[in-house]
Amino acid sequence: MNLIPNSQFLIPYTLHLADNNLILAQRNSEWCGHGPVLEQDIAITNISLDLIGQARNFYQYAAQLINDSPVPGSETTEDTLAYHRNDKDFKNFLLVEQPKGDWGQTILRQFFYSTFQHLLYQGLQNSRDAQLAAIAAKSIKEVTYHLRWSSEWVIRLGDGTEESHNRMLQAIDALWVYTGEIFQVSDFELEAVKNNIGVNVSGLKEEWVKKVKDIFDEATLPLPVSSSFHYGGKEGKHTEHLGHILAEMQYLQRAYPGVTW
Amino acid sequence: MNLIPNSQFLIPYTLHLADNNLILAQRNSEWCGHGPVLEQDIAITNISLDLIGQARNFYQYAAQLINDSPVPGSETTEDTLAYHRNDKDFKNFLLVEQPKGDWGQTILRQFFYSTFQHLLYQGLQNSRDAQLAAIAAKSIKEVTYHLRWSSEWVIRLGDGTEESHNRMLQAIDALWVYTGEIFQVSDFELEAVKNNIGVNVSGLKEEWVKKVKDIFDEATLPLPVSSSFHYGGKEGKHTEHLGHILAEMQYLQRAYPGVTW
Repeated sequence: MNLIPNSQFLIPYTLHLADNNLILAQRNSEWCGHGPVLEQDIAITNISLDLIGQARNFYQYAAQLINDSPVPGSETTEDTLAYHRNDKDFKNFLLVEQPKGDWGQTILRQFFYSTFQHLLYQGLQNSRDAQLAAIAAKSIKEVTYHLRWSSEWVIRLGDGTEESHNRMLQAIDALWVYTGEIFQVSDFELEAVKNNIGVNVSGLKEEWVKKVKDIFDEATLPLPVSSSFHYGGKEGKHTEHLGHILAEMQYLQRAYPGVTW
Repeated sequence: MNLIPNSQFLIPYTLHLADNNLILAQRNSEWCGHGPVLEQDIAITNISLDLIGQARNFYQYAAQLINDSPVPGSETTEDTLAYHRNDKDFKNFLLVEQPKGDWGQTILRQFFYSTFQHLLYQGLQNSRDAQLAAIAAKSIKEVTYHLRWSSEWVIRLGDGTEESHNRMLQAIDALWVYTGEIFQVSDFELEAVKNNIGVNVSGLKEEWVKKVKDIFDEATLPLPVSSSFHYGGKEGKHTEHLGHILAEMQYLQRAYPGVTW
């Protein structure tokens, strides 16, 4: 038996899946109640709620794994995982922690993320880990909708007015450098793949680029050729932005541990 | 024919119904992404989305009435009604514009409001105005859920720990003074009632108090006897808090009229 214990990679792998969703939801929720159009405000908030729902499923599973592990600490819950960890413990992509920017930037990030997530969950549905497979299978319908919605917006803005087109070019400039990390395999991903539990993300890159290019073509937007990327999020090396998100998100719990006020 | 034109009271009546929902959604959405518990965060944000959805239906109808009226101004839409009016034009209850306070205060306000809204929509379903009747009929299921959810929370907090009980007493102190306005009939409500379009809110007070008392009894909370109330919201006389909400909510649209950034 040369398998390492699942928990050594399964916990960080599951947290990584949760953190991406939570942090992006957090960023998107900054639009919540700030318009400028009621219909869009509702749509992006609904996407946030879907992502938080998916994050909760992954956090609940991670909490169960942590509480079951041979050296248990104090009781872990979905909320302690969301509200009591430091930025170094978060394993989300740098992409999702970047500021929401303007509407074009919010849309483009959602499109990049949903395109990836759709491929990821298609693979994860076949995971040897029944729990992860079930969460992926349950969530893929939501992601299909996020992908369609954000694709339509990319086309509408890219192939829109001169201003909306230029805004999308700026958004690509701002965000493309964070897309490389998605496909760089981290240690816990490698172990998860070896154990037939995780998805080999490096194998998704070609398909992702193809799908992004198809929509960019329709949106009359150029696909960047740059391959100079920022890395580190999966390993807990974050930009300053994550600290600000966590400060705001965790304020209540840290000020009054355990309270529900 | 001694009926006054519908639009003279129907527009403000419809805006009043919309404004209550929008402003309360706005207040509740301040919890969006600020925990302290993921599950509650999702629940209150979902309620906000329901309320914004209802507000949109009423605003769309009001916009149609305004655009159809003999002296049309510039094109009115749900978004111009939400984002381009001043505080004096808003006809919401003072109750819904008060700060969200702590979790107990948010819960208590939602409970007061949903208890009322449930009675209101029951009546409004029978409105002679087919559009208002349809919106009420469509929305009542959502309100039934909001009412059950907030009732359960009032009981849980009131009949909970000493601290949660005390917090609820403080919430009652803070909010009860704003409940009188709900049942004081404004000019546009009076005309709406005369024309069999609106609901006579003064006739709902007894039932409302009874329903609140039932839940308060279960929550071991006292029903206040004070009858010193603040009035003015329906007539556009608001507390300072509404100005702050609108400033934040309307910032984007006012800075860049018509943009979607």
